Amino acid sequence: MADSYLSALNILRETTPLVQCLTNAVVMQFSANVLLAAGASPAMVDTPAESAEFARIANAVLINPGTPSTEQYQGMHNAIAGAQAAGTPWVLDPVAVGGLSQRTEFAAGVVEKHPTAIRGNASEVVALAGLGAGGRGVDATDTVEAALEAAQLLAQRTGAVVAVSGAEDLIVSTERTTWLRSGDPMLQLVIGTGCSLGALVAAYLGATRGTDISAHDAVLAAHAHIGAAGQLAAQRSSSPGSFAVAFIDALYELDFATIATLCSIREA
Amino acid sequence: MADSYLSALNILRETTPLVQCLTNAVVMQFSANVLLAAGASPAMVDTPAESAEFARIANAVLINPGTPSTEQYQGMHNAIAGAQAAGTPWVLDPVAVGGLSQRTEFAAGVVEKHPTAIRGNASEVVALAGLGAGGRGVDATDTVEAALEAAQLLAQRTGAVVAVSGAEDLIVSTERTTWLRSGDPMLQLVIGTGCSLGALVAAYLGATRGTDISAHDAVLAAHAHIGAAGQLAAQRSSSPGSFAVAFIDALYELDFATIATLCSIREA
Amino acid sequence: MADSYLSALNILRETTPLVQCLTNAVVMQFSANVLLAAGASPAMVDTPAESAEFARIANAVLINPGTPSTEQYQGMHNAIAGAQAAGTPWVLDPVAVGGLSQRTEFAAGVVEKHPTAIRGNASEVVALAGLGAGGRGVDATDTVEAALEAAQLLAQRTGAVVAVSGAEDLIVSTERTTWLRSGDPMLQLVIGTGCSLGALVAAYLGATRGTDISAHDAVLAAHAHIGAAGQLAAQRSSSPGSFAVAFIDALYELDFATIATLCSIREA
Repeated sequence: MADSYLSALNILRETTPLVQCLTNAVVMQFSANVLLAAGASPAMVDTPAESAEFARIANAVLINPGTPSTEQYQGMHNAIAGAQAAGTPWVLDPVAVGGLSQRTEFAAGVVEKHPTAIRGNASEVVALAGLGAGGRGVDATDTVEAALEAAQLLAQRTGAVVAVSGAEDLIVSTERTTWLRSGDPMLQLVIGTGCSLGALVAAYLGATRGTDISAHDAVLAAHAHIGAAGQLAAQRSSSPGSFAVAFIDALYELDFATIATLCSIREA
Repeated sequence: MADSYLSALNILRETTPLVQCLTNAVVMQFSANVLLAAGASPAMVDTPAESAEFARIANAVLINPGTPSTEQYQGMHNAIAGAQAAGTPWVLDPVAVGGLSQRTEFAAGVVEKHPTAIRGNASEVVALAGLGAGGRGVDATDTVEAALEAAQLLAQRTGAVVAVSGAEDLIVSTERTTWLRSGDPMLQLVIGTGCSLGALVAAYLGATRGTDISAHDAVLAAHAHIGAAGQLAAQRSSSPGSFAVAFIDALYELDFATIATLCSIREA
Repeated sequence: MADSYLSALNILRETTPLVQCLTNAVVMQFSANVLLAAGASPAMVDTPAESAEFARIANAVLINPGTPSTEQYQGMHNAIAGAQAAGTPWVLDPVAVGGLSQRTEFAAGVVEKHPTAIRGNASEVVALAGLGAGGRGVDATDTVEAALEAAQLLAQRTGAVVAVSGAEDLIVSTERTTWLRSGDPMLQLVIGTGCSLGALVAAYLGATRGTDISAHDAVLAAHAHIGAAGQLAAQRSSSPGSFAVAFIDALYELDFATIATLCSIREA
């Protein structure tokens, strides 16, 4: 199993999956740089006119309604339809869902369209499952442990792999529950590390589609890659500006053997 | 008084104020990283449907019409209404006001709604006061000294603390006029240092609300924090790419004692 | 001729041209930092209400429909009209044209309005000339050599200087064809290096307008400046996070003598 998720990194770098990101304006640049450093190719095509068209040629799609205009919402609906029609994997990142009404309604609607994966913090996943009212803005106020039931419920209902980010990450699918210990608290002081994890989840799903690596392991691989990069960056820097630079460097430099030594995984 | 503004930094870090930024797309990422490094929590909620809702739970709101779409303008109006209803402090950054007609009209309207603070460069403040025609794009063509009368006029008319950024910063309220010498010319070669100062002003106002620190001192504290970080960064780098990284690091690393040694303040 | 293009750098730094960028949200921050580091002044004014007004006072305008909303498209049309009325040079960057229908139609329309320069990758230029179907998202699938005919055709038809970015850059105008060898493959792992090259082309055109430096040499100078900065950065870093920082530093530090030693130019 460990080998399975680790081999995903090599497949990512060999295939350079094209990842269509419909994401918030705050993290577009950072997410694109994360994808490039990790080995994927980003394209932020998010207009109503082009989203469906592009979702048919992209290897994966990310839906992150962080700063959604009316047009971008329409673009997201179209991209999901395009992804569904073409069988393109897509990821829902329910950023700040629960705390804000419009995006909560949006997420509640699209989660029923069977995303390949859902990635959020504990409060977002709890709110998306209908079990809580969300966090404080983009910050979680629930623990990852408290989100386990919500993640299992969402996985059962939608078939998605559900990932909850926190001190320890939780990855749940209908057949497995995996806990991942990796990362560094400094990641929370750089904007976009969570949102770009959503983008990287899409990249790994796109790269491994049609291989013998499961969607569960692809999602795990993305989390391990980001987490290990955070640990490597923390060894090089203890302030957030230089940490962010070191984090991008680490995403690029890491090989699967090093990721394996930095991450601790247990199946529950 | 010096102690008063300096203790604001500790309050900021203890309270991690939630700062809602309705700001331009150019500086969203940088402003968020500035807030995180300084000790605040950013959330760029700016849509018409969610802005008022969020302004009621945020600790402070920033209004910066740098790249305003029709929807973001509406979001700004709603956020201001939400902030007023909840008593949330809010900051107006009149970016490029004077030189461009639509945003000048917008700023002229919302400045009458009693922002807690106004922060701009000299030409923007002069134009907002109705005493001049603005600068060259986002660059000031007036000196800070020349903006003193405009700042006093705005402070009298609106009750806001009015801050003018330049070689020496000027902070004016109905009862005090403070000059701050800090910063480094290199700050002007990194996009978003001025706009993120507006965001940090909001953060300090949100953190110190209800304490015995005045709004005037909160605005001063934000300027001193940014200025001192610029000086520290300039000691570490003399080119803008690495300077920007060192600037974020410095925002995180600075304590109030170091800020006090780097800034020179005089009351006029 | 070498002297002609190299002296453009000094003119740029002396005049600090004001460059209006109507560009995609992914690269706004990075493009602004590239312009500031190189010696220009960026302003991302892109709304329908203000774009024409600003294009009359800007020294140059960039049109890059990477993530275009309906309003930004209208802003682009207005900016082009304003630029044409005032004689302001403007640059078309046909990002992802060919592969996506709406922007392909947009670019086909505005290319007839005689941009001063067109800058894209090989697949974009081939598609814009009507000779191919575009690349893979924002990635080229054609070689620069294969775009020569398309570039010549576009230059003849529009009068623009047409630049094709790749392993070797190609700059074509009605009278000259220039090949430039510079840069580093690492540039492709940082988002926005191509888009900010478009912004820098605008800056050089704005700075040199009315001098004896031709538009062809201004476009060449922008490419040499970016390419040499890539080479200098690659000497300092071999991972994309720190490379991006070093690249911005290099844009600021480079003088024309160093650029001349790093670039290899041949007229065909």
